[in-house]
Amino acid sequence: MKGTFIHGSKDIWFEDRPEPKIEKPTDAIIKLSATCVCGSDLWPYRGINKIDKPMPMGHEYCGIVQEVGSAVKNVKKGQFVIGSFFASDNTCLHCLNGYQTSCQHREFVSEAQAPYLRVPLADGTLVPTSEVPSEELIPSLLTLSDVMGTGWFAAEAAQVKQGSTALVVGDGAVGLLGVLSAKLMGANRIIAMSRHETRQKIAKEFGATDIVSERGDAGVARVKDMTKGIGVDSTLECVGTQESMMQAIQSTRPGGYVGFVGVSHGVEINGDQFFYSHVHLHGGPAPVRRFLPDLIGRVMKREIDPGKVFDLTLPLEMVAEGYKAMDERRAIKTLLKV
Amino acid sequence: MKGTFIHGSKDIWFEDRPEPKIEKPTDAIIKLSATCVCGSDLWPYRGINKIDKPMPMGHEYCGIVQEVGSAVKNVKKGQFVIGSFFASDNTCLHCLNGYQTSCQHREFVSEAQAPYLRVPLADGTLVPTSEVPSEELIPSLLTLSDVMGTGWFAAEAAQVKQGSTALVVGDGAVGLLGVLSAKLMGANRIIAMSRHETRQKIAKEFGATDIVSERGDAGVARVKDMTKGIGVDSTLECVGTQESMMQAIQSTRPGGYVGFVGVSHGVEINGDQFFYSHVHLHGGPAPVRRFLPDLIGRVMKREIDPGKVFDLTLPLEMVAEGYKAMDERRAIKTLLKV
Repeated sequence: MKGTFIHGSKDIWFEDRPEPKIEKPTDAIIKLSATCVCGSDLWPYRGINKIDKPMPMGHEYCGIVQEVGSAVKNVKKGQFVIGSFFASDNTCLHCLNGYQTSCQHREFVSEAQAPYLRVPLADGTLVPTSEVPSEELIPSLLTLSDVMGTGWFAAEAAQVKQGSTALVVGDGAVGLLGVLSAKLMGANRIIAMSRHETRQKIAKEFGATDIVSERGDAGVARVKDMTKGIGVDSTLECVGTQESMMQAIQSTRPGGYVGFVGVSHGVEINGDQFFYSHVHLHGGPAPVRRFLPDLIGRVMKREIDPGKVFDLTLPLEMVAEGYKAMDERRAIKTLLKV
Repeated sequence: MKGTFIHGSKDIWFEDRPEPKIEKPTDAIIKLSATCVCGSDLWPYRGINKIDKPMPMGHEYCGIVQEVGSAVKNVKKGQFVIGSFFASDNTCLHCLNGYQTSCQHREFVSEAQAPYLRVPLADGTLVPTSEVPSEELIPSLLTLSDVMGTGWFAAEAAQVKQGSTALVVGDGAVGLLGVLSAKLMGANRIIAMSRHETRQKIAKEFGATDIVSERGDAGVARVKDMTKGIGVDSTLECVGTQESMMQAIQSTRPGGYVGFVGVSHGVEINGDQFFYSHVHLHGGPAPVRRFLPDLIGRVMKREIDPGKVFDLTLPLEMVAEGYKAMDERRAIKTLLKV
C-alpha cells in the first residue's frame, strides 16, 4: 500500500510502505473510511517543527476493524470504530481520572494518512458505533478523533456554562468546533475572533453571536469594550502562539477560565502578569477518548454536524495538495477519502 | 504618632508621621489591636523589590473602629473589625464574582504597621466580629487579614476536596496555614515540603501527614515516589519563585490542580511543558474578604487556631527587629503588639 510521509518543509510524499500488521495482542488493524489533515500537521509542514528523517503522518481516523490481536475484547472485526490520536489503555490512574492523553502507556498514532492503520491498545482507544454509519455521517464522525474532541475540551477546560460569555481565539477547525461546543454547553454569548469571511460564516452557523476581527491588544480592547470592561467568563485558546495565549488571558475576567488546546509553540507565560490576572488556566492535548461515547451519540442522532469544517475533500493520494490548500488558507480542513 | 517605613534594603524605621484622618466619606479609622510582618514584606526588605523613596509598610490589621466617614453604614465606632490587605467596594462585578482583590476600585492598604490606620471603602472591606473578642483570640483573628485567607485561597484554588492528596510547597506562615486549610477541606494526605524542624512541627500540628525535605527535581521525584508515580491531586504553591512553581506543577498529576499564592517574582511558565502537564493553574492575590465571615466564625468558636504561626511577639516600636528575625529565619512570623 501507499502512505503519507513528510520529507521536509512543504514536502509531502504519498509513497510505498508495508501494510500494517498486528504486532502486539492488544493491537487492531482498521481499514480507514476517511482521514484528514490536522492544523498541527502544518507545524512540521511549515518547518517550525524539525524533520530529521522522513516521518509518517496522520493521527485522525475512523473506519472498519479488519483484524484484532488475541487480547482485544471490546472491538470486533467488521465494526465501525473511532479512536483518539493518542492510544491509551483506559485503565491506568491517569485514564481513570479522565486524562487518557496522559495515559501511562500512551502511544501517539502517527500513520493514519493511509488506507490501513495499526491502532495500539485497541480496547482502550477505539469506540465502536452501534451500527456501521451511512456515508454522509463519516466526516462528522471523523472529527471526533481529534478536532471536535479538542474543541469540546477547550470549552470544558474554559468551564463554559449555561449563560456564560465565551470567547474563542482561533478560527481554524478547532476554534470553529470550540464555538459549536460552547454553544452546546449553553453559552449565551459567543465571541469568535476571525478575520476570514468563510470562517466567520461557519462560526455563525455553529453559534457565534459576535465576530471580532482585531488582534493582539486591539482585540483585547475590543472584547473588554463588549463586556463593560469586565472581560469574558470563558476563553477557548485554539492557536498556541504567544500572541494568542496573551490575548486569551487578558480578555478573561478575574476568576474566569482559559481553556487552551492550541499545541503550544514557544509560549512563555509571565508569572507576575498571570498572578494579577486571577484567571484559571487549563488545557493540553485533549483527552478525546473521554468524550467519544457522548459525541458519537450526538452525531449518530444527527444533533450536531461538526463535519462542516471540511471544506475540501480529496482522494487520499492527493494528500500533498490537501496540506498545500490548508497552508495557503484556501481550505479550513481537508478530508481525505480512502 | 509613629509608623513604620522602609528606607532601603534592611532599613526599617519607626518614625513620626501624622495620625490618619477621614479623607473620603467611605473611609474608617481604626485603632489597631495588633499588626504583623508579612512574608511579602521581605521582598523589599531583601532588596528584591526596588525602593525609590521611604515607603510606609504594613497591610495586615485588626482593631477597634474609632471613626467612620459619613457614607459608612456597615461598621460602627467601637466594633472590632478585620479587613483585607486590598480595600474593595464589594459591589462591583469582580467583587460579586468573589475576586475582591481585583475590585475595580481596589486600594492597597500599606500603612498598617502603625497604631492607627485609615481603611478606604470601609463598608466593602471591613468585617466586624459579633462582639469584641478576648485578648487570646487576637493573633488568630489577625491572620484572617492576609495569611490565613491566603492559605485558604491556595487550598481552594488547588481544589482540595474530601479525600484529596495535597502537597504544600513553602513552609512560611502561608504554607503552614495552607496545610491547616487543606486539612479543614478534607484532604486525607497532606505532604508539606520543609527542611526546618520548628516549621515541620507546626505543619504536623496543623495536619501534615508527611514531610519532604528535598527540593527541586529531588523533591518532585520524592513526591512522585510517594504517590505511585502519579503525582498529587492538589498542590498549594506558597513561595512565588521559579523553582517552587516548577516543583508545584511537576508534582501534580494530570488533571490535578495547582493553587498559587506566593507573590510571583520573575516566574516564567514554559507553555510547552505546561501544555503536556495537564495541570490546572489558578491563583493570585487571595480575595480574603470573601473568606472573612466564615473564618471569623471558626476562630470565634475556637475551631481553629491559625495564630500559632506567630512565634515572635514584639511591641510595635520594635518592628525593625521583627523584620530582621524573619529575614534571618529566626522567626516564622512576627506579631506586633500596639
